[in-house]
Amino acid sequence: MTALSPATLSSEEQAQGEALLPSWNEGPAKQSIVEFVRRVTTPGGADFVKAEERVAVFDNDGTLWSEMPAYFQLAFVFDRMRALAPQHPEWKDNPLFNAVLQGDMKTVAAGGLRGLLELATVTHAGMTTDQFSKIVEDWITTAVHPKFNRLYTDLIFQPMLELLAYLRAHGFKTFIVSGGGIEFMRVWAEKVYGVPPEQVVGSSIVTKFEMRDGVPVLTRLPELNFMDDNVGKPVAINSHIGRRPIAAFGNSDGDLQMLQWTTGAAGLRFGLLVHHTDSVREYAYVASPLGTLDKALTEAKTKGWTVVDMKQDWKRIYPFES
Amino acid sequence: MTALSPATLSSEEQAQGEALLPSWNEGPAKQSIVEFVRRVTTPGGADFVKAEERVAVFDNDGTLWSEMPAYFQLAFVFDRMRALAPQHPEWKDNPLFNAVLQGDMKTVAAGGLRGLLELATVTHAGMTTDQFSKIVEDWITTAVHPKFNRLYTDLIFQPMLELLAYLRAHGFKTFIVSGGGIEFMRVWAEKVYGVPPEQVVGSSIVTKFEMRDGVPVLTRLPELNFMDDNVGKPVAINSHIGRRPIAAFGNSDGDLQMLQWTTGAAGLRFGLLVHHTDSVREYAYVASPLGTLDKALTEAKTKGWTVVDMKQDWKRIYPFES
Repeated sequence: MTALSPATLSSEEQAQGEALLPSWNEGPAKQSIVEFVRRVTTPGGADFVKAEERVAVFDNDGTLWSEMPAYFQLAFVFDRMRALAPQHPEWKDNPLFNAVLQGDMKTVAAGGLRGLLELATVTHAGMTTDQFSKIVEDWITTAVHPKFNRLYTDLIFQPMLELLAYLRAHGFKTFIVSGGGIEFMRVWAEKVYGVPPEQVVGSSIVTKFEMRDGVPVLTRLPELNFMDDNVGKPVAINSHIGRRPIAAFGNSDGDLQMLQWTTGAAGLRFGLLVHHTDSVREYAYVASPLGTLDKALTEAKTKGWTVVDMKQDWKRIYPFES
Repeated sequence: MTALSPATLSSEEQAQGEALLPSWNEGPAKQSIVEFVRRVTTPGGADFVKAEERVAVFDNDGTLWSEMPAYFQLAFVFDRMRALAPQHPEWKDNPLFNAVLQGDMKTVAAGGLRGLLELATVTHAGMTTDQFSKIVEDWITTAVHPKFNRLYTDLIFQPMLELLAYLRAHGFKTFIVSGGGIEFMRVWAEKVYGVPPEQVVGSSIVTKFEMRDGVPVLTRLPELNFMDDNVGKPVAINSHIGRRPIAAFGNSDGDLQMLQWTTGAAGLRFGLLVHHTDSVREYAYVASPLGTLDKALTEAKTKGWTVVDMKQDWKRIYPFES
């Protein structure tokens, strides 16, 4: 990886950045983005990258939208558990399931990732892919966030929306690479982020093709297929994209390997971490209930990754703020 | 699926088809393609499909390039076995491996799919993804076909290249969905077919992310990850594309479920099978050494899929023919 030199932007470039990234305050974070894009898109320049190789990958939870008080998909899981509970009286005998139904988050958290996966497979399986999409669609257009009392899809980061558009305007193909469920995100990612389904990569359960009364369906089975987090992210990038990205955006140690993989190759590369520092407008934390950021923050210093200080660097957090 | 009505094309449409599909003879196959594309791209028409939903999927072996005397990737496997044999004296004690080294194709064929997978994992694993790409690149630019004495990438079907371009010119996104190795095809699919890596879907072995002396690598393990054939194809389409295609192109029973999945939904859909009927210019067969076509051909009649009679419908088979 070639380190970015201190950026000296022309007034035209500054104006362009200003126009396309209006919710970013002036500062080293914004400057590093504009400088990187300038260098990889300048024909004949030492760092020029052909348009088809301009691949940028974005984590979702905590990077493109908020992730507190817990991943939004968990709220979906819990709502599904409550909706399905009347059909499953036996769930009361399962300590983990019962904890969800009782709102006992301590016990749920104590179950760790394994427990969450168990909850996810129970609530995400046993239906066709079309039926699941419909359930997600119904939920995402009605469920609201406990703190902001708004739809979860309202709690997306305006500066990151602008960044997605800015990169696309410069020939980048933008992908989501998230620990979240691939079929959960695909339902709304195109409308909300402008990222089409084929550019959404995530965790998945096993699906099975079968004919039902002459009609082909894909059935969702209660079995984990792939966990798209940590060391899984470079694997999923290789599987779904087949090109090494030149820019990666994350916010936790679950994104560390994705940033390592993206920036650990020859040529100019860009890594960025969103650091949640704004307790008033959003949340301030280094460790979320399900993840940490310390390893990635430490590595950012030695690798030259950009760290966004949300409070300092973002003029506006959410689209609904005026 | 709405059946296509007998096509009545305007002279303008006929001229356009003529210009963009010059290697297709006039006849029902070509006419069905032009008519389908006209209907899904006519704004305000009953069958109009938005550009972002115009997804077309293509099998590779026998659909986009030849597959006789055996899948071309098998020649790669055999060449790799021979190249690696000096480092593996123990292979002589393995009947299957020894059969490959002795050129005993009967024994190899008797091993069936399980045997081929064993050969594939042995030859495709034990290296990084970058190293594997380099090996494929070296092979695909030098190895030649036994009958035609040409590079395998010369043995692609000119009419299908035109069809790919024709669909793209009408807003379609074209994907390869093949039983072949995803990382084998991605090395050359963009140059040869104009299909970028992220639109190539195939079979895969497991890869693992690790740091080697501070350098991130993906290592290829001798373990099957996913078999993208038969019932696997709709699963892979759902995983990689996340949209249901509206057009599917295949040539064997391994493509049957992909055509069922594509055409078994509401709205105008298109299925096409390439039938190899030209023993002089290519090959004439219903069953290849590794697959059959009879189930799909039978279902084509009831489902209204187009069947291309290669001998009748294709003016030119390969690009190198004048």
